[in-house]
Amino acid sequence: MPGIEKLPLEEALEDSPQTRSLLGVFEEDTAAISNYCTQLYQAMQRIYDAQNELSAATHLTSRLLKEYDKQRFPLGGDDEVMSSTLQQFAKVIDELSSCHAVLSTQLADAMMFPITQFKERDLKELLTLKEVFQISSDDHDTAINRYSRLSKRRDNDKVRAEAVEDVYTSRKKQHQTMMHYFCSLNTLQYKKKTALLEPLLGYMQAQVEAIVDWFISSEIGI
Amino acid sequence: MPGIEKLPLEEALEDSPQTRSLLGVFEEDTAAISNYCTQLYQAMQRIYDAQNELSAATHLTSRLLKEYDKQRFPLGGDDEVMSSTLQQFAKVIDELSSCHAVLSTQLADAMMFPITQFKERDLKELLTLKEVFQISSDDHDTAINRYSRLSKRRDNDKVRAEAVEDVYTSRKKQHQTMMHYFCSLNTLQYKKKTALLEPLLGYMQAQVEAIVDWFISSEIGI
Repeated sequence: MPGIEKLPLEEALEDSPQTRSLLGVFEEDTAAISNYCTQLYQAMQRIYDAQNELSAATHLTSRLLKEYDKQRFPLGGDDEVMSSTLQQFAKVIDELSSCHAVLSTQLADAMMFPITQFKERDLKELLTLKEVFQISSDDHDTAINRYSRLSKRRDNDKVRAEAVEDVYTSRKKQHQTMMHYFCSLNTLQYKKKTALLEPLLGYMQAQVEAIVDWFISSEIGI
Repeated sequence: MPGIEKLPLEEALEDSPQTRSLLGVFEEDTAAISNYCTQLYQAMQRIYDAQNELSAATHLTSRLLKEYDKQRFPLGGDDEVMSSTLQQFAKVIDELSSCHAVLSTQLADAMMFPITQFKERDLKELLTLKEVFQISSDDHDTAINRYSRLSKRRDNDKVRAEAVEDVYTSRKKQHQTMMHYFCSLNTLQYKKKTALLEPLLGYMQAQVEAIVDWFISSEIGI
């Protein structure tokens, strides 16, 4: 089993072509993880929505059966056998509906919460950092450009000092944002396994508990 | 427990106000059953649709996990522990998805089929018969009207004979459609309990079998 690869923070200042090339590999990997996780997120969202709908529909069915007695049937409305049979059905379906509702809640907490956090927080943060890094790189390039054009002409000391200051602050900014970006890309390599496994474990656990609950409440008693 | 009430077919020919009044009660009861069954049908359709969606979403999740190995992750793509763990998740979720698919099929056969048949065949037939009966009653009224206007004037024998013939055939038609309509309204009184209980039994049976299947395939082994 290979170790987790890292973008060396100490290379950020030099910003060599080798570092840029390694950054490209990390960005490609991050894009692949992001793409895969988004697909998994969408599939899990579909499971969660369907489970919620199933819970609501089962509850509605149980409610309809409970309301049978309130219906005004001009003929045979006082049929007690039918009425009590439907009430028993309503009771069992109501228990099923409660189990469905518990499962929905557990899926929300143990499956949707971690994968949504990963998608909306970690992956989004990386996109933001990528943009911030791009902007600071562009600013740095502009400052360098301005400085190099300056040196050919004979400008006054004040303008020259401003240009030097500009190069210094923009390089400092770029260095900082690059380290921050590298750091987040490295962290993703540590988080990516947990990010996939945690919602899956949550799904399995919720599902297994639901099956046990159904078993108990439907009193099949194997 | 009261017996099942009937519209007397032998009263159809006389078509007295009492018979019409009793018909009104049966029609009201039929409308109430139809309304209640349609609500139950919609709730069951929602359960069935949600179960189908759950089955499809679970299958998709399992397929995504199986495809993990085919993803191109530039970093750490050869992590065998992660890969085999996800394959095991995929296998279990695939089994859950098969159970969901079996449940969907059973709900289609044992719940949706009987209630759809009742709604689309029995209840629709009654609406059609009501219309047919209405038309033949109107035709009969027209024929009676024409005959009564005839007798005041002095028409020739041919026209008179035609009017008599018209009254005869339209009354015969009305009598037949009324008996047919009464017969279907009576049948509904016999069918209404089965129509409610059959899809509910189908739902319960499918659900119980699914829980047992889940238990076996998830090998919890209580």
